[in-house]
Amino acid sequence: MIKVGIIGATGYTGIELLRLLHFHPQARVTRITSTSQQGEEISRVHPQFKKIYNLQLDELDLEKLAEETDVIFSALPHGLALEKVPELTRMEKKVIDLSSDFRLKNPKDYPFWYGFEHPCPDYLEQSVYGLPEIYRENIKEAALIANPGCYPTSILLGLKPLIQENLIDSSTVICDSKSGVSGAGRGAKLPFHFPECTENFKAYRVGSHQHTPEIEQELRYLSGDPNLILTFTPHLVPMVRGILSTIYAVIKNGVEKEGISEAYRKAYEKEAFIRLVEEPDLPETKFVYGTNFCDIGFRVDERTGRVIVVTAIDNLVKGAAGQAVQNMNILFGWPEETGLLHPVVYP
Amino acid sequence: MIKVGIIGATGYTGIELLRLLHFHPQARVTRITSTSQQGEEISRVHPQFKKIYNLQLDELDLEKLAEETDVIFSALPHGLALEKVPELTRMEKKVIDLSSDFRLKNPKDYPFWYGFEHPCPDYLEQSVYGLPEIYRENIKEAALIANPGCYPTSILLGLKPLIQENLIDSSTVICDSKSGVSGAGRGAKLPFHFPECTENFKAYRVGSHQHTPEIEQELRYLSGDPNLILTFTPHLVPMVRGILSTIYAVIKNGVEKEGISEAYRKAYEKEAFIRLVEEPDLPETKFVYGTNFCDIGFRVDERTGRVIVVTAIDNLVKGAAGQAVQNMNILFGWPEETGLLHPVVYP
Amino acid sequence: MIKVGIIGATGYTGIELLRLLHFHPQARVTRITSTSQQGEEISRVHPQFKKIYNLQLDELDLEKLAEETDVIFSALPHGLALEKVPELTRMEKKVIDLSSDFRLKNPKDYPFWYGFEHPCPDYLEQSVYGLPEIYRENIKEAALIANPGCYPTSILLGLKPLIQENLIDSSTVICDSKSGVSGAGRGAKLPFHFPECTENFKAYRVGSHQHTPEIEQELRYLSGDPNLILTFTPHLVPMVRGILSTIYAVIKNGVEKEGISEAYRKAYEKEAFIRLVEEPDLPETKFVYGTNFCDIGFRVDERTGRVIVVTAIDNLVKGAAGQAVQNMNILFGWPEETGLLHPVVYP
Amino acid sequence: MIKVGIIGATGYTGIELLRLLHFHPQARVTRITSTSQQGEEISRVHPQFKKIYNLQLDELDLEKLAEETDVIFSALPHGLALEKVPELTRMEKKVIDLSSDFRLKNPKDYPFWYGFEHPCPDYLEQSVYGLPEIYRENIKEAALIANPGCYPTSILLGLKPLIQENLIDSSTVICDSKSGVSGAGRGAKLPFHFPECTENFKAYRVGSHQHTPEIEQELRYLSGDPNLILTFTPHLVPMVRGILSTIYAVIKNGVEKEGISEAYRKAYEKEAFIRLVEEPDLPETKFVYGTNFCDIGFRVDERTGRVIVVTAIDNLVKGAAGQAVQNMNILFGWPEETGLLHPVVYP
Repeated sequence: MIKVGIIGATGYTGIELLRLLHFHPQARVTRITSTSQQGEEISRVHPQFKKIYNLQLDELDLEKLAEETDVIFSALPHGLALEKVPELTRMEKKVIDLSSDFRLKNPKDYPFWYGFEHPCPDYLEQSVYGLPEIYRENIKEAALIANPGCYPTSILLGLKPLIQENLIDSSTVICDSKSGVSGAGRGAKLPFHFPECTENFKAYRVGSHQHTPEIEQELRYLSGDPNLILTFTPHLVPMVRGILSTIYAVIKNGVEKEGISEAYRKAYEKEAFIRLVEEPDLPETKFVYGTNFCDIGFRVDERTGRVIVVTAIDNLVKGAAGQAVQNMNILFGWPEETGLLHPVVYP
Repeated sequence: MIKVGIIGATGYTGIELLRLLHFHPQARVTRITSTSQQGEEISRVHPQFKKIYNLQLDELDLEKLAEETDVIFSALPHGLALEKVPELTRMEKKVIDLSSDFRLKNPKDYPFWYGFEHPCPDYLEQSVYGLPEIYRENIKEAALIANPGCYPTSILLGLKPLIQENLIDSSTVICDSKSGVSGAGRGAKLPFHFPECTENFKAYRVGSHQHTPEIEQELRYLSGDPNLILTFTPHLVPMVRGILSTIYAVIKNGVEKEGISEAYRKAYEKEAFIRLVEEPDLPETKFVYGTNFCDIGFRVDERTGRVIVVTAIDNLVKGAAGQAVQNMNILFGWPEETGLLHPVVYP
Repeated sequence: MIKVGIIGATGYTGIELLRLLHFHPQARVTRITSTSQQGEEISRVHPQFKKIYNLQLDELDLEKLAEETDVIFSALPHGLALEKVPELTRMEKKVIDLSSDFRLKNPKDYPFWYGFEHPCPDYLEQSVYGLPEIYRENIKEAALIANPGCYPTSILLGLKPLIQENLIDSSTVICDSKSGVSGAGRGAKLPFHFPECTENFKAYRVGSHQHTPEIEQELRYLSGDPNLILTFTPHLVPMVRGILSTIYAVIKNGVEKEGISEAYRKAYEKEAFIRLVEEPDLPETKFVYGTNFCDIGFRVDERTGRVIVVTAIDNLVKGAAGQAVQNMNILFGWPEETGLLHPVVYP
Repeated sequence: MIKVGIIGATGYTGIELLRLLHFHPQARVTRITSTSQQGEEISRVHPQFKKIYNLQLDELDLEKLAEETDVIFSALPHGLALEKVPELTRMEKKVIDLSSDFRLKNPKDYPFWYGFEHPCPDYLEQSVYGLPEIYRENIKEAALIANPGCYPTSILLGLKPLIQENLIDSSTVICDSKSGVSGAGRGAKLPFHFPECTENFKAYRVGSHQHTPEIEQELRYLSGDPNLILTFTPHLVPMVRGILSTIYAVIKNGVEKEGISEAYRKAYEKEAFIRLVEEPDLPETKFVYGTNFCDIGFRVDERTGRVIVVTAIDNLVKGAAGQAVQNMNILFGWPEETGLLHPVVYP
């Protein structure tokens, strides 16, 4: 039984780690930290944990944390993680960081997309992008895992087989994604105030969302095309959890439906958390709610020569905490699904 | 004060006509019909109308209806409207039909997209497509107005200036639309059962939705390109009302943001129901809830050379009953906004 | 056409006044004020008002406001209204105040239930409690109208006939009320953050809600019993608008169902905004959404000798802004339903 | 590892049993039946189970089922269970029945509250009411367990300490309960159609709900008063899961807050699934979502001499499938929380 620490345990990603790790047969959360609520019982701050967790929120003491745990999840927001994570790595502690602070390989992307200069760009080189379906081998040896963003996970898993098998014109990719409100975090703000948010649907940060370079970086890696760019539009859905991405691309001459099916089967038949959805069905967010699954379906629009891929994940699980636990499983050499195969709470 | 009849008054489109016409200073609903609930008071079937309407649901007697009203709205479902509407037209009664039975000019589109042979294709020629922002002049003289579909309205209004001013490559158009559940009508079915539908988001009829030929028909008319085709993907949002369409197209060489702004201003500055949304804002469905407005905003994604247009309407108002009343106003020579300028019920 | 001013026009009550007054044939809003957003166009702060209102938010200058308007609605929060309203009254301006600052006749209730000493208790005497179904005659002459709270409106209208006709044991009254989230106002706070608030139901301030003395004050007036007390429990429903109150009382010996029906008919048959709901139907909040109606139904539980009354209102309309407009209509001698008879936006 | 059969596995209670039993370390579901969808894979009917369950829906063959399983859950609707369950009992198979067909001890209650004569009243005698917090000892030996209704569970657990310790006047009990929509089952009907059901709140079956006699039967047992009656009002909340019951009673002379606290502690301190909620907190349905917990809090309203108890459960878990698994644990001598201690999916 390994000992797990969580930095920033009271936000939505932090409590989702607590939820998922409760099922894990080989890991136990022993230390949790919070800046704003240190000293409190986690079950006072989050009453849903009563009779589940007896754990107090500690102040963040990196040295103590490193000493007393075997692996650390950082659920700090971006811009804060980079102040804490490098020190843990220097102490040779394995860290799975759920922020975006170590995902981008090109330091110039930080000022452009995030608005700050990265203070420790050397860590960008050694971090491993924690998408197991692409980087499984590298994750095994990683000291610092940069856990992927929610939108990028939903898009990269949908495009990987098409890009790798060279089935689409990569200059035509458009990703239209829709996310539940938990993706915005636990901070109460007017756009997420219930009366404003329910019975409303909108696009936001059109053409300028900070997940764009992350998606492009990985598609470039997969395609070998260093100039690949795409259009990405996020939307806000009046629901709590779930991302559905609808991805459009022109298929290459001669490519047919069966070839696309074959590419998906080949890429994913051994994956524990990818479920291919066959016609006439299509992915729906409710079928992956609370789970680490990514459901993928597609249609070929023969009239226009496009493929339309639809993927569904739970943004807090496969899009954050669940994927982080999957990465921990890889890091420790356990089967990837260890403690992660939960049925959906349905309906 | 003219007398108005509504055929099929108990469905969502029918009761929305009742709601909107209640505000109209020149028109009064005097006859309403229902097949399933004839003889009932409308306020028994729909208690929200108590103290608002004292009207009984009649059986559908076309002759009597024609005699006793000045204009008729048909809110029958598609496939049923075509059995009733032609007879009213033969009796020289003005009809605004809210089904899709008279929208498509090419009779062959009906078996392909709707699954039935059209029994009276000559009526397809004489009907006028009731989108005032395109066909205002024709509507004035129309005997039979085919009121547009909800998705087509949201897409055509977004694309019209770009197509007419030749600013985009029309072979690259992709429309990703999201609709509230009222678009599915009042029939209780499993996918719309509250526990299945709330906290869920999904795509449906990907590449095969029956509104596709209607959108293409009108874009061909606007562009002059008889072969224009596009990709259209509808989605279901867990909310009652509203359609948000996100429309993608490659812009032509040399076209810039200001030129696009100018095209929208030029096309719509005199329109009563189009509201252009300026940066940094974008349309949201909640801002048009219950109203006949269509809000339109756009972004130029300079990195990829695409324009992304976002439009928002209320599917039951500008997407159905409100547009029908706007058409009635045109037909009778009244200002288009007569009885239609309502503030949103917000929040 | 009279000129109307609104103090505090950007909160939910303020914008609801703007919405409703837009329909009014005799009144026009000419001045609106806001402390936090003065100088802004109302349609910038609330985009739903584009093409509906061209009005700028002014700073609050009481003298100017009094000079340039015929009647003033104050939509300031409680504790703030009492700093501004008395001065307007001193300038002999008619004010309809939507806060609770002038509702309670006993100054001692303020420190006990609201936590502050009332600075101008003489105004408590001259203010009129603005529930038309009880105080219509007094409202006609009032200088200062204290518009009722949302919960009290839903409860008092349900109990008035039973209390007045002496049909129930007034020591047994229990009011279990459920409110939509808009009742909490527009301030973003964690309990109303969409992910926390949706798919949740809870009671709050059990036995200690500040509307309790207001309900008791008016029931004492109606019953003549100066010691009447009751139990009131508010709950939060994951919806935007609506209050449903379920009210329990032991019926007096010999009282039967028909006698109760008769009491309701007698009390309300001439009321424009009360709708009695007959068996087997019961009030539902959706049937009054966005309207000034109060729907009332009841059941006699013969096994236990209790009557159970169910009432439904829209908390922002009959529970706030709509009732305020109804009071304005009374004040100016217009029919009470002037500008207020709107059909529900349904579904 | 025991083998479990589920009759009626596709409804909401059936799939909740499948979800919960997936976590169970000692039990495995080996046979599931469905009348309407026999022959189908469960993961075709319910795609959320893909990669979780490989199980086919069988036709209902009671003999085969009895032979091949160690315990059987019946999730048939009431009126149907009584046609199948007795035969299983005759074959000496342990059955946990989730319908109401064997809950009421007095056969006369069936025609009065359910509208049918009970065909096998002798089974009413031998069945054990499966509320572990009351009947734990009897459950251990039961051949047929009548799993409690959702509303009764939420009310009985709230009242048990007060009744047993004689702290309240049992003639004054009023239960005002609010339930999520999943309680209505999976059948699509107009009142549960998303556009009708969302943004709506209502009471139903006021004074006549069929759970009333079940609540009274058990309160009579607890109190020893064979004439105890109460008022019970159910309401429908626009959410999927959860019941919150607000329970009112007059406290007996001399009873104080501390005495009530003590009664709850004494009754529940050893219970695995009861969580007492201390001031200033109160139960909320979201804190028990998806779990077998029952959260209980109370307030003494000293002004009126009443106690107000608030309880929260998940209607599909502690109100149905979870309690059934708890009963199975008791039946097999395992710790009650075996396989049932799950953290909430939050938010």
